Amino acid sequence: MSMELTSQDTIVALATSSGTNGAIAVIRLSGPDALRITNEVFKGKDLAAQASHTIHFGTVRDGAEIIDEVLVSLFKAPNSYTKEDVVEISTHNSKYIIGRLINLLIKRGARAARAGEFTLRAFLNGGLDLSQAEAVADLIASNSAASHQVAMQQMRGGFSNQLRKLREDLVHFASLIELELDFAEEDVEFANREQLRSLVTNIHQVISRLIDSFEQGNVLKNGVPVVIAGKPNVGKSTLLNALLNEERAIVSDIAGTTRDTIEDEINIQGITFRFIDTAGIRETADVIEAKGVERTREKMKQARLIIYLLDPTQDTIEAVEQQLAELRGLGIPFVTLVNKSDLLTEAERMGYANLQPVFISAKSQIGIDDLKEELLRQVNLANVHTDDVMVTNIRHVEALQKTLDALDRVRYGIDNPVTSDFLAMDIRQALHHLGEITGAVTTDDLLENIFSKFCIGK
Amino acid sequence: MSMELTSQDTIVALATSSGTNGAIAVIRLSGPDALRITNEVFKGKDLAAQASHTIHFGTVRDGAEIIDEVLVSLFKAPNSYTKEDVVEISTHNSKYIIGRLINLLIKRGARAARAGEFTLRAFLNGGLDLSQAEAVADLIASNSAASHQVAMQQMRGGFSNQLRKLREDLVHFASLIELELDFAEEDVEFANREQLRSLVTNIHQVISRLIDSFEQGNVLKNGVPVVIAGKPNVGKSTLLNALLNEERAIVSDIAGTTRDTIEDEINIQGITFRFIDTAGIRETADVIEAKGVERTREKMKQARLIIYLLDPTQDTIEAVEQQLAELRGLGIPFVTLVNKSDLLTEAERMGYANLQPVFISAKSQIGIDDLKEELLRQVNLANVHTDDVMVTNIRHVEALQKTLDALDRVRYGIDNPVTSDFLAMDIRQALHHLGEITGAVTTDDLLENIFSKFCIGK
Repeated sequence: MSMELTSQDTIVALATSSGTNGAIAVIRLSGPDALRITNEVFKGKDLAAQASHTIHFGTVRDGAEIIDEVLVSLFKAPNSYTKEDVVEISTHNSKYIIGRLINLLIKRGARAARAGEFTLRAFLNGGLDLSQAEAVADLIASNSAASHQVAMQQMRGGFSNQLRKLREDLVHFASLIELELDFAEEDVEFANREQLRSLVTNIHQVISRLIDSFEQGNVLKNGVPVVIAGKPNVGKSTLLNALLNEERAIVSDIAGTTRDTIEDEINIQGITFRFIDTAGIRETADVIEAKGVERTREKMKQARLIIYLLDPTQDTIEAVEQQLAELRGLGIPFVTLVNKSDLLTEAERMGYANLQPVFISAKSQIGIDDLKEELLRQVNLANVHTDDVMVTNIRHVEALQKTLDALDRVRYGIDNPVTSDFLAMDIRQALHHLGEITGAVTTDDLLENIFSKFCIGK
Repeated sequence: MSMELTSQDTIVALATSSGTNGAIAVIRLSGPDALRITNEVFKGKDLAAQASHTIHFGTVRDGAEIIDEVLVSLFKAPNSYTKEDVVEISTHNSKYIIGRLINLLIKRGARAARAGEFTLRAFLNGGLDLSQAEAVADLIASNSAASHQVAMQQMRGGFSNQLRKLREDLVHFASLIELELDFAEEDVEFANREQLRSLVTNIHQVISRLIDSFEQGNVLKNGVPVVIAGKPNVGKSTLLNALLNEERAIVSDIAGTTRDTIEDEINIQGITFRFIDTAGIRETADVIEAKGVERTREKMKQARLIIYLLDPTQDTIEAVEQQLAELRGLGIPFVTLVNKSDLLTEAERMGYANLQPVFISAKSQIGIDDLKEELLRQVNLANVHTDDVMVTNIRHVEALQKTLDALDRVRYGIDNPVTSDFLAMDIRQALHHLGEITGAVTTDDLLENIFSKFCIGK
């Protein structure tokens, strides 16, 4: 692993967002010269003589010229995010000042940090493992209670701890097998095959459960994709607006108005639902709209849930049942909504009973809360404990799957006349793939791929 | 002054910009309960027991749920920006986390800060005077070396110190006059009228100089407005692009393409020039373009400098001289540019000698540096020392002008048989207006007006 394991250089970047609506900005340095470089442009106390985790007021200067009055925070190695000397300079939030100061620090010997380089250093210096580093990015991107909790759990090491335990078990198992290899000519079995089998089965189960958690973890992280379907002009856009509580889609009385799929999301009790508004499904001679219909069918297949909206003043129950039969064919859970229900008599409502619909009026915002409850019930996430370790990262699932494949070969090896060296090889492979997740095993490509997705300054 | 001189409540706001491209965000609290409130949601060391200017790692929690891992910086009264207890919480830059945390802090007793409220408190608690507070906003908005230096000078108290000296002199003067009032029946003169006259004259001069500095100060702060004028299709938009070094304006070969005035700015040796591209000046039947021509004439009157661009392949020297005569009538300095000069022979160039033009080619980027030098020469700011105290704020100029008017009346009173009480009244008025600048005299309306223009969190 050649990726600057020992950082000789000191990196610098703006750590806060670059907008103009803030009062302050924070410029962050990390590396062996962070203190020396800052000290050279800072007029105030001698920073080199100050304790870690202290804050100092002063000015930063370019020669005689004052660039800003600042607060300097010191974090001395190894008591910092990167485990290196870190300095944070809190300035007034002026693009001019930030630009001048970063340039000045670079002139004094710092280097502009690459995306994710602070966190990369934290990883390389043992401050956090790879899955925790990835969780930092997830945490910043989190926009719901569920995605936040899953990322926080992972950042704080819940997932890593579980993997470490699995690795320890596997390493123990491997050591026994490797011992057998040392005594290969004597044909002894140090590792009791029955005990080994049950250990592998146990690890296999845990990893399978982790892989299975991905579907829910992914939903918690990225939201539940929901398609609102129904014939043209039954009020799909109006429903979306009612849910989003704003005029998101252009609503008109002309059938076929909605041509583009418009995505937006709402948060129901901490779960994000990504609503996908679609062009009405019907035969059409309009080429542009025909494309919209095609896209609707595509979108439907990606949905985890379909809301089917019907207009009782337009659709007969027979026609509706035919459409629902079509939808059931897709094998995706769906919720049936009867719109304009405020125009129905009690007897008319009864006619829809066997569809078990939710009665709403998108226009009058009636039944929207019932709908939200039904959505939560359908995704069945109420009983998911976000404290549980959950896999949310496709990279992790892939590594877990490869671990599982290797374990399958180990299991086969135990049950069949396979020599210990083959067994040992498969176990080492399982360990390798497990290690990729936490970064116990890494390559430059892997690190590049992960950290380049970070923002600069993290 | 009723505006919360003693702050009972604790305010909270995001202090950094709210964009999504940052790694960290800083949430700031100020007020008597800042420590108590933070301590209630923070798990780590007991913050109440920690020293000022120290940083503490821990988690913030809502009940058992971890919202984030944070760094908490403590600033204990009076050693903080607001002179109150201040806590800064450095979080991961997630909108979700920021929202949760601010809401949590509000639930525990903080109140969402209004725009500029931290700086208002700094002013009310004597941390900085009003002109310094205004300079904080100017500093954040500064986008050139010149505007930055002027704001920095003002924030660090250069202007305030000069005003304080003037006020002290005036107060001394006033005290002598008021003494005369106490002994009014004895008809004595404690204040030597000649000495007083020379003192007032001296103050008068200083204030006049400050008022005069506004024109330059304003230019340094807001940039030099420059109009690029010339007949249609002589290359004005191309010139603007050459100056801006990017495809800012839409350039085409069709005369009259540029209809809207497009503003953009460049920085030449620390001075901002705001270029105003204008519709070509010519008679036109096109209504939209006619409006553009009208706007051009308006813009020209606001300019501090006009660049007149001519095309030697299109304009005769006679026609040009007639146009220049028109422009001279506006009384605004102008620079004459001969475009497409790469197509001219030396002899042809000589023909333009008495116009003293700069020869350029906007398309080939020839002569652009010469033009920049000429622009700097014209605004004559090279010999302006940004260390000099300079007035950049229209509010300050107005107050200075009122001070000057009062001093004129004082001067009249000294030279004419006016009783001491009238003299005293005019001096008090001069003191009042001078005090408005630094905030020695304020009203709620004035403060409201100043601080509402700040961003939240400052």
